[in-house]
Amino acid sequence: MLTVNAYAATSATAPLGPTTIERRDLGPRDVLIEIKFAGICHSDIHNARNEWGGATYPIVPGHEIAGIVSRVGAEVTRHAVGDRVGVGCLVDSCRECVNCRKGEEQHCLKGFIGTYGGVGRDGKPTQGGYSTHIVVAEDFVLKIPEGISLDAAAPLLCAGITTYAPLRHWGAGPGRKVAVVGLGGLGHMAVKIAHAMGAEVTVLSQSLSKKEDGLRLGADHYHATKDPETFQKLAGTFDLIVNTVSAKIDLDAYLSLLALDGTLVNVGAPAEPLSLQVFSLIMTRRSFAGSLIGGIQQTQEMLDFCAKHGLGSDIEVIPATKINEAYERVLASDVRYRFVIDIATLK
Amino acid sequence: MLTVNAYAATSATAPLGPTTIERRDLGPRDVLIEIKFAGICHSDIHNARNEWGGATYPIVPGHEIAGIVSRVGAEVTRHAVGDRVGVGCLVDSCRECVNCRKGEEQHCLKGFIGTYGGVGRDGKPTQGGYSTHIVVAEDFVLKIPEGISLDAAAPLLCAGITTYAPLRHWGAGPGRKVAVVGLGGLGHMAVKIAHAMGAEVTVLSQSLSKKEDGLRLGADHYHATKDPETFQKLAGTFDLIVNTVSAKIDLDAYLSLLALDGTLVNVGAPAEPLSLQVFSLIMTRRSFAGSLIGGIQQTQEMLDFCAKHGLGSDIEVIPATKINEAYERVLASDVRYRFVIDIATLK
Repeated sequence: MLTVNAYAATSATAPLGPTTIERRDLGPRDVLIEIKFAGICHSDIHNARNEWGGATYPIVPGHEIAGIVSRVGAEVTRHAVGDRVGVGCLVDSCRECVNCRKGEEQHCLKGFIGTYGGVGRDGKPTQGGYSTHIVVAEDFVLKIPEGISLDAAAPLLCAGITTYAPLRHWGAGPGRKVAVVGLGGLGHMAVKIAHAMGAEVTVLSQSLSKKEDGLRLGADHYHATKDPETFQKLAGTFDLIVNTVSAKIDLDAYLSLLALDGTLVNVGAPAEPLSLQVFSLIMTRRSFAGSLIGGIQQTQEMLDFCAKHGLGSDIEVIPATKINEAYERVLASDVRYRFVIDIATLK
Repeated sequence: MLTVNAYAATSATAPLGPTTIERRDLGPRDVLIEIKFAGICHSDIHNARNEWGGATYPIVPGHEIAGIVSRVGAEVTRHAVGDRVGVGCLVDSCRECVNCRKGEEQHCLKGFIGTYGGVGRDGKPTQGGYSTHIVVAEDFVLKIPEGISLDAAAPLLCAGITTYAPLRHWGAGPGRKVAVVGLGGLGHMAVKIAHAMGAEVTVLSQSLSKKEDGLRLGADHYHATKDPETFQKLAGTFDLIVNTVSAKIDLDAYLSLLALDGTLVNVGAPAEPLSLQVFSLIMTRRSFAGSLIGGIQQTQEMLDFCAKHGLGSDIEVIPATKINEAYERVLASDVRYRFVIDIATLK
């Protein structure tokens, strides 16, 4: 066992604070990673505060992990000491079901093992990236190419793949009109990636307050959704809309923006059900779909794509002591566009 | 002008009765069709009774039309006197918009001209197939291949294309598991067509009362949706579900039956909105979609496919005097599986 420093929530209402946790001994196909940076994802807050239920404390959040390999098990072939690596939302899966065999481990029929808040193969709770080290099965460790700094790479492991996957699956590219709803941690990556894929990109945000940012990130157009004229002007326009907002939206209004065979994809799920008129789908054969992070192979593809196109996340690096403050700022949408914890401050 | 016999509704509450209507003079690219058979579609009842609003009376329903060309305009090249032909739900469209140019006239951005209840290019209300003759622009007239009798062909012009289009679009075929919800006029064609395409076909019906029919029509499996075990047993099974039922359904329950990348397609729209948990879509990247009849080119493809595979609708032929009685029986689901009016009884 390896005892390491970490930052944990000890109850749904307590602020996060410093602690130590134990990492498992290195198995023959495990990799020990010295974590350098960990992104703060909105779902970290939901989990730390048990807003989705089922939490067991302490919880060390963090599934946007970038670091350096510091030790490898005897049979490890994919990674070597000193490699720049990342870990995302999952650290294992059954590896046997039809979806795992397709490389869609995030849809493992037995349920993937989450990077934190899950139960590992050793029967113990998994703990995430707000800590100095993590032990992960080599097949679930990604390579971070040279050309992306580790701090800007960390959020790609969740925000990057969450938006890359639907853009790739539904064919964002030249000649395609893509809208991104919401310009936050997910949305700003969706804009960068869709632009790099060659699509014509429109941001649909509540107001125009981040318009300058949106255009700088790669958007061709920027519209405020609080302006009802937006929905008239853009009716029937988009081939793909990626909705990064988890709040309840007027689905029929957004579906009306789709062209023939267009798809509206949610990458987040509001707690309450959404309602829609089926007529909104039947007209011009529209689809409403959902997408969940991505498989390991596609996550690597995303990292390579981002490196090739010089894409990282726009970040604000903070020391561990500022995690609780950062949580409040995330909830107030006061971040452009991702907080990343400098794990050196945990030592 | 040509004065022809027809059966019409004169108000939302009156039974349909015999009348005469006028058909326009034959334009240079028009075809005059002597109607032999007209199918009764559930939407005829909605329209005759103004249940969708906007009706102007009298209304002659009928958009499942099969007959023989009896005269052609001077410039007609696609059809000749004596040809076996059909007319479906649309008799014209703008022919210029991006969707029309793609051959998706049913999604014409200016709105297609409905076979009845629409407004023709001459500014007059269009009138449908419950009549002895109709004049239609040649480009919207389909060829009914030898090998399908005209009476069994009539319902293909709506029920056939409505189900063929989503089966083709979402790739029903060998190795694919397709479920059909509801075994009525649309559902029985969906089963026949999906089976002919080579898919493994399951019927999901409220009860098992039509099981024998379902298997005879080509289904491999048949399950009752009123049995809650059905939803447990079949969780994660289907690549495609075609929902032919316009009533409100528990969307989350049906979505749970889809495998990775599966799609639930509605071909009808309930009047009230439906609600769903977005989580149902995010898990295994599912889609909820809608489909509306089909374009002219695909309708011809469907007729040729049906002829090649020896498919027609299962019908009960009735005289015009039984139309009102047939409406009541449609509403009571007492038809296997489509009423077809013998237009000779109108003369």
